[in-house]
Amino acid sequence: MLVVGEKINTSRKQVREAVEARDASFIRDLARKQAEGGAHYIDVNCGTFVDEEVEIMKWLVEEVQQEVDLPLCIDSPNPLVVKAGLEAHRNGQPMVNSITAEKSRYDDVAPLVKEYGCKIVVLCMDDESGIPEDANTRFEIASKVIHGLEEAGTKQEDIYVDPLIQPIGTATNNGLSAMETIRMVKEQYPEVHAICGLSNVSYGLPERKLLNRAFMVACMTMGLDAVILDPNDKAMMALVVATEALLEKDPFCGRYLKAYRNGILTEPK
Amino acid sequence: MLVVGEKINTSRKQVREAVEARDASFIRDLARKQAEGGAHYIDVNCGTFVDEEVEIMKWLVEEVQQEVDLPLCIDSPNPLVVKAGLEAHRNGQPMVNSITAEKSRYDDVAPLVKEYGCKIVVLCMDDESGIPEDANTRFEIASKVIHGLEEAGTKQEDIYVDPLIQPIGTATNNGLSAMETIRMVKEQYPEVHAICGLSNVSYGLPERKLLNRAFMVACMTMGLDAVILDPNDKAMMALVVATEALLEKDPFCGRYLKAYRNGILTEPK
Repeated sequence: MLVVGEKINTSRKQVREAVEARDASFIRDLARKQAEGGAHYIDVNCGTFVDEEVEIMKWLVEEVQQEVDLPLCIDSPNPLVVKAGLEAHRNGQPMVNSITAEKSRYDDVAPLVKEYGCKIVVLCMDDESGIPEDANTRFEIASKVIHGLEEAGTKQEDIYVDPLIQPIGTATNNGLSAMETIRMVKEQYPEVHAICGLSNVSYGLPERKLLNRAFMVACMTMGLDAVILDPNDKAMMALVVATEALLEKDPFCGRYLKAYRNGILTEPK
Repeated sequence: MLVVGEKINTSRKQVREAVEARDASFIRDLARKQAEGGAHYIDVNCGTFVDEEVEIMKWLVEEVQQEVDLPLCIDSPNPLVVKAGLEAHRNGQPMVNSITAEKSRYDDVAPLVKEYGCKIVVLCMDDESGIPEDANTRFEIASKVIHGLEEAGTKQEDIYVDPLIQPIGTATNNGLSAMETIRMVKEQYPEVHAICGLSNVSYGLPERKLLNRAFMVACMTMGLDAVILDPNDKAMMALVVATEALLEKDPFCGRYLKAYRNGILTEPK
């Protein structure tokens, strides 16, 4: 399971304030703690700073890399921001979040994926359908982008499909549509990865952590093998380790036992 | 999700002692609390009393029925005990745990299923394979028993296939084999139910509750729609409600919201 640490995102108030004050130690601290929590990638998103996004992305990428050796996930819908982040990136293979099947976005981002050889998150949306409700349409969109990226030279193993998680409080089938998309992608393209954020699924409902955790186990059962989350949520990280053991992804339960010995597993009370 | 309350089982020390002392109030109390916790069936198992099992089963069935209106699950490998339990049962449609494809057990239990019109748990084992390691063999065994029971007049909706849960600590693929069996059964026989106990999966490993809970969500994702558990484990019952909402089995999240209002949901800390 590839874990992308989600915390450096200016939609969070503390991060926004730290960025406004150019408080590098706050940002570095967030990066280091996520690395210690088990993140494999550090997501960097400053989309709330519309006019300064390019400049801030560069600053964030540089600060994070001064603190940790992990690669970063450059998270922006704006190709200019993505390019700026990639140019500043030097910690191994970067990830970009995201490309879509929307024509202008695809045409702008695809060349960057090729130029920088990065991992790429594919959102299942296009110009015609927006975010489609049903799994079949999402799968078709994903297929289209996968084929396009492959033709341009990207390996399937560098592609991460995000089915896009919508709240079950809005439409009861939103959880299952996403899970079905994951299942179809992994069945058809075993080398392609499936990734998502979790918390949207519970938006508007009480006891959100309960739903988010159950949703992660359910999505992993359907083939999810990468996730964007808070790696300092110990109960969630413990569930990742436990679920991998249950899904035969942990030979002899070795990582599970090691996590236990290291005090990482917390049993829900 | 059909919940079978597992607590009245003489393999548990307190229950064994209560049965030895014919402490009816202890037994009745266990039955009532499980009903209050949300059980739909009360399992009754006195298999540790080999020589007195018939007599004790009758006593247990009668005591439980004096306390609750729920139907019981008569849980014994011994057809004479099953018959005694069924004769004493009067709270609606009983369930029997279990029948197998082992010839003598099948021949003895199948007529009782027909005579009493009960729900029947089918264990995926036979004379040749014992408990098979792989999902395909388990599915074949289940199919054989399903066809036999159907020919004798049992409806598919009264059949509950138990894939038999073995510890992942013994063989890493044990969890996935069970899940695959569930998936195959539900795909091939949508009206047949899938049932299991959970805790065997974590036998021998630390932080067992963590594994058991993740396993339940994973199995439900694969189609599990009945479970044998402790209905007074509030965190587990909350996960059942949350997972049903995620799997589109709870229109408008109505039961989830009701459970929240009733204080039944506990968010894992």
